[in-house]
Amino acid sequence: MDIEILATPKDITAKRLKEKAAVIFDVLRATSTIVTALANGCRAVIPAKEIAEAKRIEGELKSKDVLLGGERGGERAPGFSHGNSPLEYPQAVVAGKVLVLTTTNGTRAIRPAAKGAAVLLIGSLLNARAVAGRLWELQNDVVLVCAGTNGNFSLEDALAAGVVVKEILSLAGGQNKIGCREGDPENLRRSGPATEAGPGNPPVILSDLATAVYRLALWYGDNLLPAFYDSRHGQRLLRLGLAGDLEHCSRLNLYDLVPVYRQGIITVP
Amino acid sequence: MDIEILATPKDITAKRLKEKAAVIFDVLRATSTIVTALANGCRAVIPAKEIAEAKRIEGELKSKDVLLGGERGGERAPGFSHGNSPLEYPQAVVAGKVLVLTTTNGTRAIRPAAKGAAVLLIGSLLNARAVAGRLWELQNDVVLVCAGTNGNFSLEDALAAGVVVKEILSLAGGQNKIGCREGDPENLRRSGPATEAGPGNPPVILSDLATAVYRLALWYGDNLLPAFYDSRHGQRLLRLGLAGDLEHCSRLNLYDLVPVYRQGIITVP
Repeated sequence: MDIEILATPKDITAKRLKEKAAVIFDVLRATSTIVTALANGCRAVIPAKEIAEAKRIEGELKSKDVLLGGERGGERAPGFSHGNSPLEYPQAVVAGKVLVLTTTNGTRAIRPAAKGAAVLLIGSLLNARAVAGRLWELQNDVVLVCAGTNGNFSLEDALAAGVVVKEILSLAGGQNKIGCREGDPENLRRSGPATEAGPGNPPVILSDLATAVYRLALWYGDNLLPAFYDSRHGQRLLRLGLAGDLEHCSRLNLYDLVPVYRQGIITVP
Repeated sequence: MDIEILATPKDITAKRLKEKAAVIFDVLRATSTIVTALANGCRAVIPAKEIAEAKRIEGELKSKDVLLGGERGGERAPGFSHGNSPLEYPQAVVAGKVLVLTTTNGTRAIRPAAKGAAVLLIGSLLNARAVAGRLWELQNDVVLVCAGTNGNFSLEDALAAGVVVKEILSLAGGQNKIGCREGDPENLRRSGPATEAGPGNPPVILSDLATAVYRLALWYGDNLLPAFYDSRHGQRLLRLGLAGDLEHCSRLNLYDLVPVYRQGIITVP
């Protein structure tokens, strides 16, 4: 199993996604909000690129069971009933509803990340272990796509990708075997850091960026809130008074849930 | 002082380099070889993009004091007297000579990385502290450019950039202050992780990628050879029998030397 990381949506190409199991991360906050809403009983999330598109979809669905959510610049989009905070979607609000969501980075990256991929999963810290478990079941090559912030690398998305790599290595039984040591002839046969191939399992082979985000995840350990305080986007949300969002989005493996994007709609199949 | 990282030469734009102090890293092996040759008394290194260009420059210089070095695919370029191993350039070979060098990644990235920058320094693990010291003296905003491998992110170049960030933060007296903690109102005023502004010093502000490579450098600590064994390019060099090159290139702060690229020539001014 090869694992590759795309640091921003700019890095997406058809070739890189072809037949891969892809995961999209926009930890602060779109994918965390999607995962939370679905965990709280939301039936489906429809990601929209633009505000006008979101309103059009809401109109077409003609149902009072539709919620319109989204943000621009971190704040609730004008005329929307809901923003992009996961805390705005408790069970009492979203159970049985369809959420149409538009955000600056995350929802815009979902459609491109699905093109040509065998499957596109929605990833966050909240469901990192569940996502890793599904990837391990699938055994496709993996591409972890970071939505980033305004086209740039974002620390929190890279970290979430690293946590998923860590969980996959744990499932592969190779968490302590990754990384090569001088004089170990086994390593010389490999094209990159890899776990041992277990009985029936192919080895897990990491790209250099996958190794880097894995090491980053090891550095931060299990308390990931400090990473949000390290990140520029995290700092901006703090200035908007959204410390509670950061706290929620940092909760590792809170939900055992793997949302899947398929033909415009995100559900938990 | 803002610090930004370009993960590959593809990320170079005129705007990102404008008036910045830039550093180029191709740790395995071009910039490590350049630093080593100059430390061993080489008068100047002339980076060439192509093999033909390197031969033309050698011909024009018309001197027996010129060495022709370079590689393609990690192996010595055809017809060249020297390759791209730093171990091929001891004092007995390079003292007083001019080295014309062409490599797959590093020397090709040097010219683009210089365009519009106030200065372009040659960085490696071998001279990381010296480079950081010069950047701190200059007090320009900083761009650390990773040459990468065949256009892709490379672990060892990112790590070297992270080591330079770590050294700058140490000079700024902020090594333990970086990273924000919940409830610290100081942090909310900042646009990103930063050191405190000391007396007469502006704060050091890191991009998210700069924070990530800094954390990566902290994870690996002072023994950086394992990182080379983690990297795909490191593994390839091992398969070519070049373990000695890896060992040499991993030696942190071996040389107190800051090579500068200027108008086609690298020297220690």
